Amino acid sequence: MSSPQQPWQVLAQKKRDSTLALIPPSWRIPNLPSIQDQLDVTGSYTHQFLSQTEIEITETTPEAILSKTTTGLWKAEDVTRAFCHRAALAHQLVHCLHEIFFDAAIEDAKGLDAYYAEHGKPVGPLHGLPVSLKDQFHVKGVETTMGYVGWIGTFEGKKGTGNEKAYESELVGILRRAGAVLYVKTSVPHTLMMAETANNIVGYTLNPRNRRLTSGGSSGGEGALIGMKGSPLGFGTDIGGSIRIPAALNGLYGLRPSSSRLPYHGLANSMDGQSSILSVVGPLSPTPTGLRIAVETILQAQPWLVDPLVIEKPFSTSTYLNALAPKTPLCFAVMETDGVVNPVSPILRGIRKVASTLEKHDHKVIKWTPPSHSTLIDLAMRVFTLDGGSDMRSAFALSDEPPAPQLSFLADISGAPEKLASEVAEVNVALREARKNYLDYWVSTTELTGTGRPVDAVICPLAPTPGARREGYKYVGYSAWVNSLDLTGTVLPVGSVGDDEKEKEEEGRYEGLGEMDREIHDSYDPEFFAGAHCSVQLVGRRLQEETMLGLVEYVSGLLKSNP
Amino acid sequence: MSSPQQPWQVLAQKKRDSTLALIPPSWRIPNLPSIQDQLDVTGSYTHQFLSQTEIEITETTPEAILSKTTTGLWKAEDVTRAFCHRAALAHQLVHCLHEIFFDAAIEDAKGLDAYYAEHGKPVGPLHGLPVSLKDQFHVKGVETTMGYVGWIGTFEGKKGTGNEKAYESELVGILRRAGAVLYVKTSVPHTLMMAETANNIVGYTLNPRNRRLTSGGSSGGEGALIGMKGSPLGFGTDIGGSIRIPAALNGLYGLRPSSSRLPYHGLANSMDGQSSILSVVGPLSPTPTGLRIAVETILQAQPWLVDPLVIEKPFSTSTYLNALAPKTPLCFAVMETDGVVNPVSPILRGIRKVASTLEKHDHKVIKWTPPSHSTLIDLAMRVFTLDGGSDMRSAFALSDEPPAPQLSFLADISGAPEKLASEVAEVNVALREARKNYLDYWVSTTELTGTGRPVDAVICPLAPTPGARREGYKYVGYSAWVNSLDLTGTVLPVGSVGDDEKEKEEEGRYEGLGEMDREIHDSYDPEFFAGAHCSVQLVGRRLQEETMLGLVEYVSGLLKSNP
Repeated sequence: MSSPQQPWQVLAQKKRDSTLALIPPSWRIPNLPSIQDQLDVTGSYTHQFLSQTEIEITETTPEAILSKTTTGLWKAEDVTRAFCHRAALAHQLVHCLHEIFFDAAIEDAKGLDAYYAEHGKPVGPLHGLPVSLKDQFHVKGVETTMGYVGWIGTFEGKKGTGNEKAYESELVGILRRAGAVLYVKTSVPHTLMMAETANNIVGYTLNPRNRRLTSGGSSGGEGALIGMKGSPLGFGTDIGGSIRIPAALNGLYGLRPSSSRLPYHGLANSMDGQSSILSVVGPLSPTPTGLRIAVETILQAQPWLVDPLVIEKPFSTSTYLNALAPKTPLCFAVMETDGVVNPVSPILRGIRKVASTLEKHDHKVIKWTPPSHSTLIDLAMRVFTLDGGSDMRSAFALSDEPPAPQLSFLADISGAPEKLASEVAEVNVALREARKNYLDYWVSTTELTGTGRPVDAVICPLAPTPGARREGYKYVGYSAWVNSLDLTGTVLPVGSVGDDEKEKEEEGRYEGLGEMDREIHDSYDPEFFAGAHCSVQLVGRRLQEETMLGLVEYVSGLLKSNP
Repeated sequence: MSSPQQPWQVLAQKKRDSTLALIPPSWRIPNLPSIQDQLDVTGSYTHQFLSQTEIEITETTPEAILSKTTTGLWKAEDVTRAFCHRAALAHQLVHCLHEIFFDAAIEDAKGLDAYYAEHGKPVGPLHGLPVSLKDQFHVKGVETTMGYVGWIGTFEGKKGTGNEKAYESELVGILRRAGAVLYVKTSVPHTLMMAETANNIVGYTLNPRNRRLTSGGSSGGEGALIGMKGSPLGFGTDIGGSIRIPAALNGLYGLRPSSSRLPYHGLANSMDGQSSILSVVGPLSPTPTGLRIAVETILQAQPWLVDPLVIEKPFSTSTYLNALAPKTPLCFAVMETDGVVNPVSPILRGIRKVASTLEKHDHKVIKWTPPSHSTLIDLAMRVFTLDGGSDMRSAFALSDEPPAPQLSFLADISGAPEKLASEVAEVNVALREARKNYLDYWVSTTELTGTGRPVDAVICPLAPTPGARREGYKYVGYSAWVNSLDLTGTVLPVGSVGDDEKEKEEEGRYEGLGEMDREIHDSYDPEFFAGAHCSVQLVGRRLQEETMLGLVEYVSGLLKSNP
């Protein structure tokens, strides 16, 4: 006999409390400040709760951590404890975790240290590096709610499957075998189909740099946690910008690889089996080198032997190195606007800074005048609503919980019948034609680049604004076009709101392109957004992961030496 | 004002006659023999209509032709004329062509000869090689009916698009730029969803070796034409066996690459946009080297720059060469039966011959005991009927023509509603899980192979019988599982019916596995099937084109030296 189900509010509260209860008392923040009292909880604010050693460890780049943990200079256990502590602080301040498994992580770290002590070598390229995972990853010992109250105590909403807290996604195994230490799973918006992170379990994931703002989504927990330096490297997923948006909004580097490059097998998902635009897995990191280490490590593990959708295409070190240190001039293209929404001035300034820095280093920069981006964005929306919202609705129905207000589009499409197989096929044909048109345009630039190649990468906004207010992230057009075309998308930070005093004045003079544009510019305010990260997107053709990893690292190096 | 449409019989007859009218009078066969009077129209029967030079040219392997046309020893024009002549004979005897464009081909060949004369070098690796194309390819100057009467005078069933006789599929351009001479488009079954080739325009494509039998399908025109030596190399497509079946039934080599390796962009298709199991393009050739030349040439052309679905994965010559001349023992697996239908004795004998030959050359051969093949075949059938037959029915409705009797499944599924988007997604999930199970099994063989690798290739039937009677090709299970899993499938000839006298006796003792098996064995008769080609399938993991091209060439070499 099953007992009557408790109200969703009770179930959510229990789950929320049980996660918090996994934080040791000594790591609790006694008097949590209100958002208004402490907008920025990064850096010095967090330092008060940490030891000097913990600060040193957690503010070390992933590549530098690895140089110590793989050579025995730092113990995996010490590194793990430091990041567990900082992650615990982060969660209390910005609500970024769904699952905490510090004890298992510390045990694993001790095992790694024992291995090193015995063999004098690391178990793999990620030996001793804590790695955070978006909640979609299944990890032994903890559950996966994906923000749905109805998934609590189940495996993807089903009870008694035998997989509960037992099954692991394929990438999890790869990371473990490489020596990574897994310790948390990070918050997501329920449905995953939002650019902000909110659900009825953890509430709203705040932006650590300015807690009035969103940390982005759907990998918003990853963005916030790494932004808080509570993780040196993490993995998210991206079907419309879900890696790149939180990376951009938290001043991180992010990679959206093309589909079928990295192993997605065994992750929980929304609308699983929708194959017109595939969600992809990819890294977020405080440094571009972290992204490369992540991708290289995974591809070295031959993921095509564990995930049937992964292409057998080994990591090409030479391609990466050629992009990292170009021997001849490259050609970039700049797209300052997609014609639907213009970026606000600090984003535009970032784009121009990247372009001028590249020109200063003898690279060519041309103007990008591609086929319609509106078409690409419309196609993504058609794909995301093929099932008329039935998958999402049935997930909410499990507990009768209400969807977040950001999912109002679900109400808009309710009542609309699901599309038929022949209509799914029509969308696939339209997507293929759009990809062909765009590819033809891209290849046609060979005549303009002077390199003998098509444009190497496109510099453009990732978002029109440096983040957004709560319920204010309205426009995913700058990220979703990359998914519609299955291109290689990267983001890199270029500054913060407030870097330039003229901004306020510039924004005041702005004339909108249309309703959406006006709404977004109206909601942006340099004072309210103070300190928010500004980022820029670098987009390469399909399956150009090595080239783009090299380029984003190269460009970020140039920006650092040309502030 | 559009005039009332003529009956489909009239339109089909006109189209049929107009194709025949493109055969010069001197190439007509005066008194066409009946099928019974001349079962076998290959070899000496055809020789009577050809000059010695034409026989020499058309019986030269594609690689040997290229060694002459790319070095100026043979003129492209002479080679082209010889194949045009033999193709014209083939069409009259086995009905294998939809479109004839000999004049354009001879002009193109003259252009190639002029180029060679001027520059002293070939235009590309296929300089002067005639290449035949399945009718799905769009080629300038001729139309694409795909066997539908309703497509005559249209572009894929639509009138006035501006693409009629003007548009070319991307692979066509690649072949032209490589120096190939295009001269015919070959017959297909309407809908493409049959393993025999029949439609209301050309009628039934006969097997040249035994005209009572089918040439296979859906690339049946390619199979018959190359089997008649009316083409040295051709391209078909394969969604359930459509390259491999005609290759097998005509004693040819065929490759079904994994999806997204070779460019499909711009081909006409059935159920376009159905993306759960993608149709793929691939070569058929009288020699395994021909397959390799085809694939290598296409990949050298960087097809990912013209087809957005093609993976950027250049041809790996070293991988091919390693498989072609293995330096250490390999491990093969044998699957003599899929448990649904057993192969008849000459096919079984072929499989055992391949296995024992490999063992004789120090390779290991183990038994293949994979996850259920029934599941894989059921999944393919679910995918092929997702739209409830609506695409096919609307194509037939354009002219009111009747479907071939082999399409009785269309009647079976009519009335069944189209599947919904969420049901398409369910099938995709089931396919992914099946691929994962099979991959896990394949990788698990690493423990048994002694090579440190999973099994290199699986030796199995491609069809349970050496072809089939008209309306008798009932079981595609041995080919379609490869499509469900998106593996690399190749076929190679291993003999003919009648090679072994004991066969009749063996078959008489056979006890069936079930109804389908019994039906297939009952319909097989070594006397009726006299001379029919026997073939074997070699299957590799996904995206193993270079390895499989090397292996099929290697194995075929061993078989020749161990008759």
